[in-house]
Order: sequence, then C-alpha cells, then structure tokens
Amino acid sequence: MTNSYSSGPEVMVCEVGLRDGLQMFNALFPTAEKLAWIQAESAAGVREIEVTSFVPPKLVPQFVDAQEVVHGALAIPGLCVVALVPNLKGAERAIELGVHKLNYVMSVSRTHNLRNVRREREESLADFKRIADLIRALPEHRRPRLLGGLSSALGCGYEGRVPVADVQRWAVAYAEAGADEIMIADTVGYADPVHVKEAFRAVIADVGTLPVSAHFHDTRGLGLANVAAALECGVRRFDASLAGLGGCQFVPSATGNIVMDDLCFMLDAMGMRTGVDLEKLVAVREIVARNLPGTPLYGKLAGAGLPVNYHAGATAA
Amino acid sequence: MTNSYSSGPEVMVCEVGLRDGLQMFNALFPTAEKLAWIQAESAAGVREIEVTSFVPPKLVPQFVDAQEVVHGALAIPGLCVVALVPNLKGAERAIELGVHKLNYVMSVSRTHNLRNVRREREESLADFKRIADLIRALPEHRRPRLLGGLSSALGCGYEGRVPVADVQRWAVAYAEAGADEIMIADTVGYADPVHVKEAFRAVIADVGTLPVSAHFHDTRGLGLANVAAALECGVRRFDASLAGLGGCQFVPSATGNIVMDDLCFMLDAMGMRTGVDLEKLVAVREIVARNLPGTPLYGKLAGAGLPVNYHAGATAA
Repeated sequence: MTNSYSSGPEVMVCEVGLRDGLQMFNALFPTAEKLAWIQAESAAGVREIEVTSFVPPKLVPQFVDAQEVVHGALAIPGLCVVALVPNLKGAERAIELGVHKLNYVMSVSRTHNLRNVRREREESLADFKRIADLIRALPEHRRPRLLGGLSSALGCGYEGRVPVADVQRWAVAYAEAGADEIMIADTVGYADPVHVKEAFRAVIADVGTLPVSAHFHDTRGLGLANVAAALECGVRRFDASLAGLGGCQFVPSATGNIVMDDLCFMLDAMGMRTGVDLEKLVAVREIVARNLPGTPLYGKLAGAGLPVNYHAGATAA
Repeated sequence: MTNSYSSGPEVMVCEVGLRDGLQMFNALFPTAEKLAWIQAESAAGVREIEVTSFVPPKLVPQFVDAQEVVHGALAIPGLCVVALVPNLKGAERAIELGVHKLNYVMSVSRTHNLRNVRREREESLADFKRIADLIRALPEHRRPRLLGGLSSALGCGYEGRVPVADVQRWAVAYAEAGADEIMIADTVGYADPVHVKEAFRAVIADVGTLPVSAHFHDTRGLGLANVAAALECGVRRFDASLAGLGGCQFVPSATGNIVMDDLCFMLDAMGMRTGVDLEKLVAVREIVARNLPGTPLYGKLAGAGLPVNYHAGATAA
C-alpha cells in the first residue's frame, strides 16, 4: 500500500546517550568503557554518535576525557563523530581534534537560555555565527558539519508553551548564519503529535532544503508518537539514547531521551531502513548497565524481544 | 492550522485494567477496592469501564465477584458498564445483571484461538451469533451493546504476522452477525504505525458505519505511536489501563495495555476532548498501588506531572 511514511529512503539515528545521558552523572564513566560503547553501537549500525561535549570540565566533570574519547571514536571506520560545542572556544577545540559534526544549542525560550547559559538568545546566535565563520575559513576538507540546535523549542519548564513563530524565527536565523542542519528539541517532553506537526512543517517550509532533525524526550510518554508525527512531516534524522539514558537522576520517573532501541524497532517495523541491527543494538545495553549499576534502563524491546517470525518492514513491503 | 487530527469531535477511552489487568493476579483485588477504583475513575471522567469478566471463576478466580462488581458499577450515574463475555452462558449472566455493553473476543490467529479457547474461529463466531440473536430477542430497552473483538489481530505469539485480509474477513463476519462495534486488538504488542494504518483503514472501509475501536498493548513501546496512527484513520475509541496494568507478572518488562493516564494526556494535548480530568485520573493510581504492592506501575505523566502553564489542546485551538 502507499502511505505517507513510505516515501523516505532512509532514516539516520544519532546516539546522544554519551552526552545527553551521561552529563548528569558526576562520576566518570570510564573512558575505555565509553569507547567500548561507541565501538559496539557503531558496530550495530548506528552511524552518528554524539560522543562528548566541549564544555569546561569544571562545569561538567563527565567530559574531562573529551579529547581521548574523540580520538578513539575517530578511529572507528564509517562513524560520524559528533560533539556538543557550547561556544566558540569549544568549537575551536573540537575542530582541532577533527570532530566531524558540531552540535551547537541555544534555547528558543528566552528564560531558559538565560538560566542555562546566562546569555540572551541574540548573544547565543552571535556566537554561532562566529563558529560558522570559523568553519567557512577552513580548507574544505577540514570543515565539520555544523548543526544549529533549538532546545526547549516545543515547551519550556519556565515559560510553558513556546510559540511556533519563535521556533521559526530562530531556525531561520540559524539557516542564515550558515547552519548545515537545524535540530528541534523537545527538551522537557512537552510536545504532542499535533504540536510536532505544526512546528516541524512550519520550520521545514522556512528553511528550504536544510535537513531538520528531531530530538525528543520521553518525559510524558509521547516520544515515539512524536517521532511518527515528525516522520509524516518528512523528518529523517532523530536523536535518541540507548536505554533512554538521561533525564534527571533525582526524579526517577522524569526519563530522558527517547529510547534508541525502541526507536530503531519502530522505524524498522515501519519499513524505514536505519542500517541498525536490532539484536546487536540491544546487546550494547550491557555496557551501560555494568557501568551505571542502579540506574534505571528504559525501553521495552529489550525485555520483550522481537516479535515471532519478525521481518523488518513487513507492512511497507 | 488544519490537520488530519482536528476533525474528530471527541474520543472515548475505555478502562480495561480491572479485567485485562487484574486477570493475571490470582489473589482477589478486594471487591470494595475494585468499586473504589471504578468510582474514582468514573469521577475523573472515564465513561466506559470494563469492570469484570464472566469467565467461570474456577478458570480465573479474580472474577469470582463479577456479580457484586457489576451491581456496584451500575449504581454509578453516567457510567457505561462493560464486561467481557467468553461465551453464550457468560452473555446470559451479564444481560441478566443489566451490563450495558458486552465485549466478546475471538482471535484472528487460528492457533491462538485454539490455544486460548480451544475452538476453531468458526465456532467462536457461531457463539457470537447466538449472543447477537439473544440480544435481538430482548425488548429494546434491555438490549446491551455488543462488541466483537478481534484479538491477536496485528500479530500473534504463535503465528507471527497476521494477514490484514484475515482481520477484514473476521471483522466483516462480526458485522454481518450483528456487532454494534468492532474492536481490533494488538494483544502482544506487535503493531507499528504503518501496520495500524493499513489494518484499520481496511477494516473501516469494510464495515461501513460501525464504530471500530483499538486495543493496543505497549509491549514494545509503540502503543501511543499506534494510537496516533489509528486517530489518523478516524478511530475514536481506545482501550487502556490505568498505570499500564497488565502484561505478564513473570516478565517484568512485558508490559500490558497502553497507559490510560499517558493516553489521556496525549489526546488532551492534541486537542481531542476525552472528558477526563488528568490530575484526578493520576490520583486514582493510588488505589491500584495500595492493593498491588510490588507490582510495577507504568506511565510517565504520573511522575513528570503536567507541563508548566498547561492548556489542553493548545495546538489545535
């Protein structure tokens, strides 16, 4: 049958657990184990991994080994090594190390941006422009891709609902400043499928051919429903974290990113090629589990297993 | 904005935790506590509750109090009291007690039907016809609604994928036999949004004006994504269980029905009126918790709470 899902050739999933998941743990996840995780998930077919953040280690001790992790990740053939860069200085470090893709993030919510990075959004954008200019000045073979991320884009813990017009405004600003990709993030899990369609359709219409990716949290359980809604808008790039690592360790039920394993199962079942081997992917959870004892791991596929006689995309075929 | 979700006037949610959830617990959930649950969830705005099953108590001891539960539930103004009836004899008991709606279920999967009720599907359908005939012979004011449920319709733990043509065939058979409503159940959580759209669109096209409802399990995490897909097909009736009660107590991760609280939040956020007060609904979980200590309760809304400055259907408005 023909349906709105079947037009896309492929979906890119990006693992963000090593950054968005680990950042809340003060105790260092051993560097060798981070690399084991990256290696195993890459071997399972995940082609983009946000491996670290170039925030000052005194702010987030978990990323004190950023350089070593990037070095190790760059040695894995075929992997796109991504890092969060909070500012120009972080971008300079990441570029020097040869990171393939830089994720820069500002908040659409003014209050959240002020509380999170103590800057007006205009200042955040100005810093992004400096990074974009820095990249443009590099020889072509050394240029990383630059992602402009919009956090709290579908809701904010301070301001509540965020107007879609604001998301459009800052997405367009990113595009004009030289972003290679726009990312819309539902940082606190406020979105629903109707909201997702409204926001993504508006932004996609505004930024033309630039890829728009989605970063959903499963805070209120709607994460995969929101993915399905974004797919219908043509979105083909999704962040997720293995076992749903992330959220807040002080609020056990306030889970983090959508679960990579369940996301890949859904996409696979829908007939969208991700390149990921589901059984290999689920097996990588063991690396997370052994290094974070007592931390709840989320995701349903890992417990339930694949359906009997499962064939990927049986419907779409 | 106009979108495919905004056309429906209202969504009916039906609580099935007292039947589909409790059936796996041998120890009796005290009758007074069942009634407290029904009362509280009805007061929260849930207008249909499947309160019990008329299976022989020697098979499922949990439903030994079926008569008392039905009596108590019928005393609640405005509540549609639903009961599962496995056969003609169960239907006779339910009708005698004044149950408003009878849910009859057979499996689309031949193997599952044979294992579950030791009958060929044709025999199950013949029993359904006898129930429909019995109802037709009643004076109009005493006739309950009769739902024909198709379990394992989107996948079977024995047979794997179930052909959509088979779902259509048995749905049409139910319609011809006199069903007032058809229910399609993903009993073991095999469905994905593409599959849901294919199956529901096909059945809805075949059964004309008969309402088609959806009963999803969240076994592999796709429950609410499947709800969103069914909404796009025009489905406006969903089963769910408070706190996701159900599944199998021996497989902790094999969760049961979709979570009523998260379902209502999603529908509400999408601007679809359910009549349910989300905060009152979440509070009902306490009744389940105190009676099933140690049983995992699912759902994200309960832990995360409503978004800041939340207004139902802000997008759709």
